[in-house]
Amino acid sequence: MKSKNIKTVAAGGLLDRRSFILSGLALTTISPIASFASTGSEGHSVIGETLPSWMKVPGKGATAYGLPSSHEQHVRRHLEKNTPETSLFSIWNSPIENQRGIITPSSLHFTVSHNGIPDIDPTKHQLMIHGLVEKPLKFDIDSLLRYPMVSNIHFLECAGNTAPNAVSFTALDQSCQDLFGQISGSEWAGVPLKYLFQEAGLKPSAKWVTVEGADGGSHARSIPLEKLMDDAIIALYQNGERLRPEQGYPMRLFLPGWEGNANVKWVHRLEVTDQPAFTKDESGLYSDILGDGKIQRFSFHMGVKSVITHPSGKQRLPEKKGFYEISGLAWSGHGKIKKVEVSADGGLTWALAHLDSPILSKSLTRFHIPWQWQGLETILLSRATDEHGNVQPTRDQWREKYASYSFNHFNGIQAWHIDNNGVIKNVYI
Amino acid sequence: MKSKNIKTVAAGGLLDRRSFILSGLALTTISPIASFASTGSEGHSVIGETLPSWMKVPGKGATAYGLPSSHEQHVRRHLEKNTPETSLFSIWNSPIENQRGIITPSSLHFTVSHNGIPDIDPTKHQLMIHGLVEKPLKFDIDSLLRYPMVSNIHFLECAGNTAPNAVSFTALDQSCQDLFGQISGSEWAGVPLKYLFQEAGLKPSAKWVTVEGADGGSHARSIPLEKLMDDAIIALYQNGERLRPEQGYPMRLFLPGWEGNANVKWVHRLEVTDQPAFTKDESGLYSDILGDGKIQRFSFHMGVKSVITHPSGKQRLPEKKGFYEISGLAWSGHGKIKKVEVSADGGLTWALAHLDSPILSKSLTRFHIPWQWQGLETILLSRATDEHGNVQPTRDQWREKYASYSFNHFNGIQAWHIDNNGVIKNVYI
Repeated sequence: MKSKNIKTVAAGGLLDRRSFILSGLALTTISPIASFASTGSEGHSVIGETLPSWMKVPGKGATAYGLPSSHEQHVRRHLEKNTPETSLFSIWNSPIENQRGIITPSSLHFTVSHNGIPDIDPTKHQLMIHGLVEKPLKFDIDSLLRYPMVSNIHFLECAGNTAPNAVSFTALDQSCQDLFGQISGSEWAGVPLKYLFQEAGLKPSAKWVTVEGADGGSHARSIPLEKLMDDAIIALYQNGERLRPEQGYPMRLFLPGWEGNANVKWVHRLEVTDQPAFTKDESGLYSDILGDGKIQRFSFHMGVKSVITHPSGKQRLPEKKGFYEISGLAWSGHGKIKKVEVSADGGLTWALAHLDSPILSKSLTRFHIPWQWQGLETILLSRATDEHGNVQPTRDQWREKYASYSFNHFNGIQAWHIDNNGVIKNVYI
Repeated sequence: MKSKNIKTVAAGGLLDRRSFILSGLALTTISPIASFASTGSEGHSVIGETLPSWMKVPGKGATAYGLPSSHEQHVRRHLEKNTPETSLFSIWNSPIENQRGIITPSSLHFTVSHNGIPDIDPTKHQLMIHGLVEKPLKFDIDSLLRYPMVSNIHFLECAGNTAPNAVSFTALDQSCQDLFGQISGSEWAGVPLKYLFQEAGLKPSAKWVTVEGADGGSHARSIPLEKLMDDAIIALYQNGERLRPEQGYPMRLFLPGWEGNANVKWVHRLEVTDQPAFTKDESGLYSDILGDGKIQRFSFHMGVKSVITHPSGKQRLPEKKGFYEISGLAWSGHGKIKKVEVSADGGLTWALAHLDSPILSKSLTRFHIPWQWQGLETILLSRATDEHGNVQPTRDQWREKYASYSFNHFNGIQAWHIDNNGVIKNVYI
């Protein structure tokens, strides 16, 4: 397998990005076609003899709303074990190891709901702005659809994503989906909230806004007005179509880079205030408990984070030794990803992964690096850095900061252990 | 409605982008909330009296593979009138007037098939490379999934998109979907073809490649090797999941910026040759007939083009006079969109529209501009220019170049007529 054209960039078999092209590394599952080598361009007739059945008959028609192939039925959201279907609080994890690129299909986007998904008649839904404003207003869908809109590609992540790795009990035999499935990427389009507040007229004492959803439990969060006047939108569209019910149809608050639950779904009320409301949702579940026992309230930003999606947990490398592409996702709630480093030897040496364009602010960024596995036991790691110099911490660094039972906002470096049979497992290093 | 803060940028009511924010233009469908104005932050209890039914009961659970709201069933692909369901050649148009942003959901992506959609078992599908190569090869899905992949957001357009406007008969009462529905935007991910050809080893005389699909009619096109060694991929993923059956599952050729039918779906054979094969598909349907009667073969690039998606054909402006956002899509098979100009007076004056980021090469680009309609009859136009200086022609300029019965590659400027009742209609100017 050695070739003088292969350039190693770190130990454990990490290769220079151009190595694959230059060295002609053969994947052993490729079959040379013996008969073709001799028949040359006459090969057409040889193929004709072995036509598959689907080339011998006309195909079926398309449909008005398409669905995936019946052969891809295994790629589905998973209901989180701790939230059974009988629970009103439910978490469905996205199969991110089956995703390429930075867009998650809306059908597979993770979803968390605290009180189930309301069945809202969009013609009867209204958005109200009141409190510390000059002119309280309400908007129906038709009026919002006439406002100027923006569209941007952003990630959305649950504060509790990767919680199993944060707490002291172990989660060693889990897949990427089950550990990391509360992160997704979409194009969100809607009306900048600043337009609506400017129209209502903010009073001088206005500082916070209580944002309430029209679900059965009235999920509510206090959001600083500054964020709402910056890049927040009332999202009406996701990935080119109107929001899905589980994403807040007919409208949700979208706060680029901020924890999922603050992006209030089915939003129907914005009350402008001079202080936070300390709602049940923010005083309870979404306050972080620090190592010294103090509570950190309003920790909205999602930290810089990355994960290798393939190879990843519960997968098995199909070939003993050989070429693989390591590929994964990185993101930061503070801005753009600047670099992702990958280690194939448990952190002794690191190499820069290639970042696919577009590299967008508060968006998933796809990274990859070629890797020549020598068939030996090893550990794969990825470490992201954002444009502001924030670096993804180790698991231990993260756990030092928080209480042992704290689990939100975990962004420690993920370690995938590979044994000498190619079996991949989540480990803590 | 006049305000000293409103800055006009062209006649017919086109406004400066900041005007909306600065002037506080009120949309007349917004209702001030009288009761709230007096109750202030006590408003919460007032709302409680009129809670909608969905706030009084727990919601439903999510599903493993989500679908749109039942209230959005009208947003569907339309089967083109000239290709009934009984026809093996079928065209389904995408509802682009219902899309915001630059991503089309895969379920609503336009689809054209010449011989129906084959039901391919992915474990039995192979891609063969033969002809003028040193070592003929075949790849199954599992081997291709191990190769380095790239992902990029690109448009895909059928050569025949907007054909009704090209030919001499008229299509005056059609919607944006029915006229322009064969354009869509997606994130496509797959294996760069150059890797596969480098592995097979190209012979010095290699210049063209016959690309054949595994459908019942063996749709085939001759593609210059130069394009395949540039940015072409064997696409395996679209918008984060494996290709849909109607998009070529389990694999298709994807050629950024080139006419749809050259992006061979269900691809199973690449025969490297020294000249084009002149397949039935390229000698017949996809050769352009010029004004002087000559045939233009291999006109692969899609030209620079744009369309205002809202307001657009068969819609009606809901309010007599008032503020609207004009929004649309622009694209070019040659590279990035540089600018889009909009006219609200039938082409007498033009203003630059704002382009939403990201502005990507060979991708849909979203443009918009605020507009104050005065309630008078007028015509809306958009004209795109790409980074190479290609300018979208008028309909007459386009028709001068081609035979009167030629209909592929039409990219003339679209004119939407608005009468004084706000009814919008396709017109030729």
